Amino acid sequence: MSRYQDIKEAAYNANMQLPELNLVIFTFGNVSAADRSAGVFAIKPSGVAYNELSPDKMVIVDFDGKTVEGTLRPSSDTLTHAVLYKHWHHIGGIAHTHSTYATAWAQALRHIPVFGTTHADYNSVDIPCAPPMSDEMIKGDYEYQTGFQIMDLFKEQELSYEELEMVLVGNHAPFTWGKTAEKAVHNSAVLEAIAKMALLTEQINPAATRLKEALKWKHFERKHGPGSYYGQ
Amino acid sequence: MSRYQDIKEAAYNANMQLPELNLVIFTFGNVSAADRSAGVFAIKPSGVAYNELSPDKMVIVDFDGKTVEGTLRPSSDTLTHAVLYKHWHHIGGIAHTHSTYATAWAQALRHIPVFGTTHADYNSVDIPCAPPMSDEMIKGDYEYQTGFQIMDLFKEQELSYEELEMVLVGNHAPFTWGKTAEKAVHNSAVLEAIAKMALLTEQINPAATRLKEALKWKHFERKHGPGSYYGQ
Amino acid sequence: MSRYQDIKEAAYNANMQLPELNLVIFTFGNVSAADRSAGVFAIKPSGVAYNELSPDKMVIVDFDGKTVEGTLRPSSDTLTHAVLYKHWHHIGGIAHTHSTYATAWAQALRHIPVFGTTHADYNSVDIPCAPPMSDEMIKGDYEYQTGFQIMDLFKEQELSYEELEMVLVGNHAPFTWGKTAEKAVHNSAVLEAIAKMALLTEQINPAATRLKEALKWKHFERKHGPGSYYGQ
Amino acid sequence: MSRYQDIKEAAYNANMQLPELNLVIFTFGNVSAADRSAGVFAIKPSGVAYNELSPDKMVIVDFDGKTVEGTLRPSSDTLTHAVLYKHWHHIGGIAHTHSTYATAWAQALRHIPVFGTTHADYNSVDIPCAPPMSDEMIKGDYEYQTGFQIMDLFKEQELSYEELEMVLVGNHAPFTWGKTAEKAVHNSAVLEAIAKMALLTEQINPAATRLKEALKWKHFERKHGPGSYYGQ
Repeated sequence: MSRYQDIKEAAYNANMQLPELNLVIFTFGNVSAADRSAGVFAIKPSGVAYNELSPDKMVIVDFDGKTVEGTLRPSSDTLTHAVLYKHWHHIGGIAHTHSTYATAWAQALRHIPVFGTTHADYNSVDIPCAPPMSDEMIKGDYEYQTGFQIMDLFKEQELSYEELEMVLVGNHAPFTWGKTAEKAVHNSAVLEAIAKMALLTEQINPAATRLKEALKWKHFERKHGPGSYYGQ
Repeated sequence: MSRYQDIKEAAYNANMQLPELNLVIFTFGNVSAADRSAGVFAIKPSGVAYNELSPDKMVIVDFDGKTVEGTLRPSSDTLTHAVLYKHWHHIGGIAHTHSTYATAWAQALRHIPVFGTTHADYNSVDIPCAPPMSDEMIKGDYEYQTGFQIMDLFKEQELSYEELEMVLVGNHAPFTWGKTAEKAVHNSAVLEAIAKMALLTEQINPAATRLKEALKWKHFERKHGPGSYYGQ
Repeated sequence: MSRYQDIKEAAYNANMQLPELNLVIFTFGNVSAADRSAGVFAIKPSGVAYNELSPDKMVIVDFDGKTVEGTLRPSSDTLTHAVLYKHWHHIGGIAHTHSTYATAWAQALRHIPVFGTTHADYNSVDIPCAPPMSDEMIKGDYEYQTGFQIMDLFKEQELSYEELEMVLVGNHAPFTWGKTAEKAVHNSAVLEAIAKMALLTEQINPAATRLKEALKWKHFERKHGPGSYYGQ
Repeated sequence: MSRYQDIKEAAYNANMQLPELNLVIFTFGNVSAADRSAGVFAIKPSGVAYNELSPDKMVIVDFDGKTVEGTLRPSSDTLTHAVLYKHWHHIGGIAHTHSTYATAWAQALRHIPVFGTTHADYNSVDIPCAPPMSDEMIKGDYEYQTGFQIMDLFKEQELSYEELEMVLVGNHAPFTWGKTAEKAVHNSAVLEAIAKMALLTEQINPAATRLKEALKWKHFERKHGPGSYYGQ
């Protein structure tokens, strides 16, 4: 039994949620689960169909992207995961999908406006879309740079990765994260729902405006603030 | 066995309909079932996933929002349910979802126009959208005030909660109700269907107009009028 | 065993296809199957949920709308079915749904333009939308008049009910028919697919034009013409 | 046992994927699998429902469209398949569907712009839409000419069928292909996903532009270039 059995199972279970939640077709996505004490994460192998996955096929990689255990090649997006784990110390899982509506916003190079409480229950700002990276970065170590593309956006916009657990990478697709791999996938599904509702909102009322401040904070606070009263 | 077993089972069954009818993901919704003779209702516990629910986990709350039986914390929207039960004496069930299309209309702050007989089979008016409440009300007892936000809208527009069993809460999402919890959920699904058709209607014909009066009344009357001939 | 067992089973099976093909929720639809030699048809009882149906619950009605066998009240749309069977001698089944996209076109009061071969495989004309009936007709025998509303449209536009087996009733929803109840339901599903594609086509290209004549006829003829070579 | 058992099973399995991937209703599609050494392909029989298919019902046809084995009539689109196999020597499977979004783009007579990496992972150009053929060609051997309509477009636009494995036939629907029948169906599902995302992208941002060159090539190359590192 691998010493990384726990994160292999967590990563496997989280990856299997992607097709169940209609967030991917074929191999369009990957989830990882980190073990911070060991300084590694388990991630989906590249190009393997979900119905052929098993916990044992998960690849163990360190935070510099070096494979530590496993015979399969890890997801082609592995370096993006590695960079985020290395620099954002409080996340335990990362999910990447090409879910339909979130990807369409990423392709449209637009932030998703916070139009309602479904969105505000998760975060009180627009979900930002990182502009495409420079040609030099693309031609360099592309997936590695994608991690910095995301972190640079958060720095520029003074966002906290602990409060906002989702982002759109321009012309590409969303990345989400959280304390666990399961939470990262949860956030992917929520982002997809928010992305769809936001487009519909603009179609119903092209002059729709963002949620008022008081309501935005009320919903975020009742779930995440010091006096939160949502959940058990 | 709890003396409230009947409403616990009714509330449980109705809550379980929400994911089955594709009206919620994760914990995005809650349904309650009232026992008017006992002056209480059973409601979903807060933040518990549908596949982990059971009748025993339903929380019994009185019409002032005080928990009467149950160890879990009730839905964060419990006070909204309590207010509606307290003031609207003829309803036996309430449902709240963030279903995609109805929520998009709520986010767009628009009433849903009565474009066809699918809508008129249920009610003969536009489905109204309550404007967002004042900042004072939000910062006060928010969920309690949401109940009054809904009732105030009905008073202003001279609507009867017994004829129109659904409403949009601006920037938030829909609430529906009925004689039973099951009927409240039924109304949530109907509202979602109407909301989707209404957007599509406007997309197909931006100049689409409401149903003519005679047809509106005919369909409502054949289901709900004194000479109704729909159903058994 | 009823002497009408065959059409009861045909009607039952065809009705059960409606939820399976995602054409209805709850009781939003009805299908009938005719026995022309006996001058009757079997139709869904009114307001009964699909999962509670059985062949025995189908109601036998004659072409004047009089119940011949069965204890339940027939569908509230029964008179529309009766009128069509009485006047259109070569149809053996009728289906009525409130399927999302077809209903949206009906609510928008627009004909569905023939944009592609999916549509032309079934008929070579726009799928017409009958204008709402006059107030007098609505207040009279509404469902009976709906049958004439449909037939009048076909007369005015010189359409053949044997070539075009589908219609939109303005502000209401679609009716489809065919040699059998099964074919009527098949046509409902095809109409829904065509209705969705037509809206998307206009969204992708607001200047989209109808299929050229030669292509329209080629596709219709290869399925339905004298030298047809589609199917076995 | 037929000497063509392998391609019969490959064609059967690939055809059965179409309804599973929600790419067809009823008989709206067909897939074939070629045996290049024998100079034949196995294809779905015409107008037979998917749930009635079996490997034995597949029809064996040569590259001139002549039936070699099988008692059923082959798909009405058989000659299109035959022409493509005859002229494009490196394909082993072809799929044709009327999937909703791809067909809508074909009906709109528009190329699908390459808006993101989901598209660029498969090919670095817009997915082209062949203009409708001339009336003479339609009235001639229509399905045979459809093959040339596709090949002519690839010649005109200097496209390689080995790099771009999908096309829209104007006013009709998509065709896709690949080394195997399974890959052809895979491409049909990917095309449908790309087609939906592209429409949504334009709806979210009517001024959306294509992916920048560097990113387009990066994604295509990492999957298909000489130094590709996607998959196992």
